[in-house]
Amino acid sequence: MAKNEWGMSVYPLVPGHEIVGEVTEVGSKAQKFDVGDRVGVGCVVGSCHSCDSCKNNLENYCPKSILTYGAEYHDGSITYGGYSDTMVADEHFVVRIPDNLPLDVAAPLLCAGITVYSPLRYYGLDKPGLHVVVVGLGGLGHVAVKFAKAMGAKVTVISTSPSKKKEALENLGADSFLVSRDKDQLQGASGTLDGIIDTVSAQHPLFPLLGLLKSHGKLVLVGAPEKPLELPVFPLLQGRKVVGGSMTGGLKETQEMIDFAAKHNVKPDIEVIAMEYVNTAMERLLKADVKYRFVIDIGNTLKATTS
Amino acid sequence: MAKNEWGMSVYPLVPGHEIVGEVTEVGSKAQKFDVGDRVGVGCVVGSCHSCDSCKNNLENYCPKSILTYGAEYHDGSITYGGYSDTMVADEHFVVRIPDNLPLDVAAPLLCAGITVYSPLRYYGLDKPGLHVVVVGLGGLGHVAVKFAKAMGAKVTVISTSPSKKKEALENLGADSFLVSRDKDQLQGASGTLDGIIDTVSAQHPLFPLLGLLKSHGKLVLVGAPEKPLELPVFPLLQGRKVVGGSMTGGLKETQEMIDFAAKHNVKPDIEVIAMEYVNTAMERLLKADVKYRFVIDIGNTLKATTS
Repeated sequence: MAKNEWGMSVYPLVPGHEIVGEVTEVGSKAQKFDVGDRVGVGCVVGSCHSCDSCKNNLENYCPKSILTYGAEYHDGSITYGGYSDTMVADEHFVVRIPDNLPLDVAAPLLCAGITVYSPLRYYGLDKPGLHVVVVGLGGLGHVAVKFAKAMGAKVTVISTSPSKKKEALENLGADSFLVSRDKDQLQGASGTLDGIIDTVSAQHPLFPLLGLLKSHGKLVLVGAPEKPLELPVFPLLQGRKVVGGSMTGGLKETQEMIDFAAKHNVKPDIEVIAMEYVNTAMERLLKADVKYRFVIDIGNTLKATTS
Repeated sequence: MAKNEWGMSVYPLVPGHEIVGEVTEVGSKAQKFDVGDRVGVGCVVGSCHSCDSCKNNLENYCPKSILTYGAEYHDGSITYGGYSDTMVADEHFVVRIPDNLPLDVAAPLLCAGITVYSPLRYYGLDKPGLHVVVVGLGGLGHVAVKFAKAMGAKVTVISTSPSKKKEALENLGADSFLVSRDKDQLQGASGTLDGIIDTVSAQHPLFPLLGLLKSHGKLVLVGAPEKPLELPVFPLLQGRKVVGGSMTGGLKETQEMIDFAAKHNVKPDIEVIAMEYVNTAMERLLKADVKYRFVIDIGNTLKATTS
C-alpha cells in the first residue's frame, strides 16, 4: 500500500491496521468505553450496518465496509491508519484488550490473529484432536500455529525452508514439520489431515496440499496470490474436499478472538521498534527478516523525540 | 469406460451403474429384501465397512470402495455392471425403489440423482428460499433442477445454449435462465446466489460463477474436468466463498434420495431403448442428443429376441 503496488493507494497515506492504545476521549453518545480503557482497532472502521453480512456480525464482508486506511469514510474524508499518535474511531469498530494481554503483543492479533482465528472456527477446524496444517510460517502462520494448538489441534507446519523446523517445533510448539518441496515427506502424510490454513501469498501448487487432506477435509486460503491458482478437480470430487477463503473477521468475533488469546496465552512474537526504524523494518520485511511482526511504539517514540 | 478413454478399463467390460430390477433370489443370510422386491444398485457394490467414511455411511468415499463395474471384487473377480439380465449384489449396496416410482424412471437417480442430491444436502443448499444455480443441463443438471425445486429453492439454469431456455423454464420448472457467455446477463445476477451445482465436465472459467455467489456462497463441482481449472483467489477471500466437490453418495443417503424423489415426484426425463440400440445411443450421447438419460430395457429386449 505504501508503494501503491496494488494500484489503489491514495496519498497522503497513513498505513497501519493493527492498532492499540488507550482511550483518551469519548463522544457524548459513546457507551462502550471509558477514558483509560485499553483498546484496539483492526482492518475495518465502518460498514453499512444493514446488509446480511452486517446483520450477522460479519462487517468485514459488508460490500460497503470501510478499510482503516486509504478508504473513503462516511463523511467523504480519507481514512488514516495506525502510524499515528491519535485516532478517532466509531466505538462499534473498537475492541477491548484484556488486562493480561500486553498492548504491543495484542496489536498483531487485530489483523494477523483474526485472519487465522476466524477460518479455524468457520471451517470447523477448532475441535480438539483434529490434525491441522499451517502452510507458511510468517506473521499469519506463526499465530495460526498458536491458535490451533490452543484449540486442541495437532499442528503440522509446512514451509519451504527446512531451517524453520527447529523454530516451528521448539518455539511455536508445532507437533511436526514438513518441507513443502520434499515429496516423500508429503507422501508420508497423505490423507491424514482434517484441515489446512494456507497463508502463502505467492503462486504455489494446491495439488500436494489437497493430497494431504482426509476425505471431507478443508483447505482454507488466507493469503492472496495475484494470479489464479491451479485447481485440480478430481481430488475435490473423490474426497468431497473443499477449497475456501477467509478474510479477517467481524467485530464480535474479533473481540472473542482477543479474549481467547488472553485466556489461552496466545501471544504473537513481536519486535518492537521506534518510528524512526520503520523504513529499515520495511526493507527487512521484504527479506522476511522478522520474527514475526514489527510493532511500532509510537507513544515512546514521541516521548523520546520531544524530550 | 467402454472405449478405455480413462485408461483404467478392464475387458471384458460390462458397463452400467444405474441398475434397477426385481429380486429373483436371496441368500440364506440376506435380511433386507424378499423375492419380488423392486430394487436398485448404483455406483458402488463394496467397501471396507471399517474406515471413517464407511462408519459415517459414506461408503462412496471409502478408499477401498468397489465400483459396480470394471473393479476387483472381494473374491478377486472383476465386477460387471448393469448391461445384463441378472446381477448378484451384497444387500448393503442395494436400495429399495418405492412402489410409486417406475423402475425405468428410477434408474438414473442411482448415479445422476444422488450425484446432485448429496451436495445440495451436504453444502446446505437444501433450505427453502435459497437461490441455487445449476450449471449445465444434461443428465445431471436436469435432475439437479428438479431436486433443488423440490427442496424449495429458487433455481436458475446456466447453459452455453440459449436454445435450452424454453426447456429449462417450461419443462423442468426452473425460475430463470442465463446464457453462460452473456456477460451482461451474468453481471445482472452478480452477488445474488447462495450456491451453484456445476455439472460441467469440460474446461470452463470459475471466475464468473464465483462472481454470482453472495458472500459465504458455495460453488460445488460434480463434473470432472481432466485438467486443473483456474481458481481466482480474491473472490474466495473477499466473500469467504467455497469451491467444493462431491461424488455420488453413501447408501443411506441414496435410499433417502430415492424416497425423497418418490415423495416429491422428482422424475428424471428418460428415453427407453432396447439393447440393440445401444451403439446408436452412444453416438447420440456424444452429440448430447438425449433428453436426458437413455435407459436400456434389458428385460423386454430379451423377451423380444427370444420370442
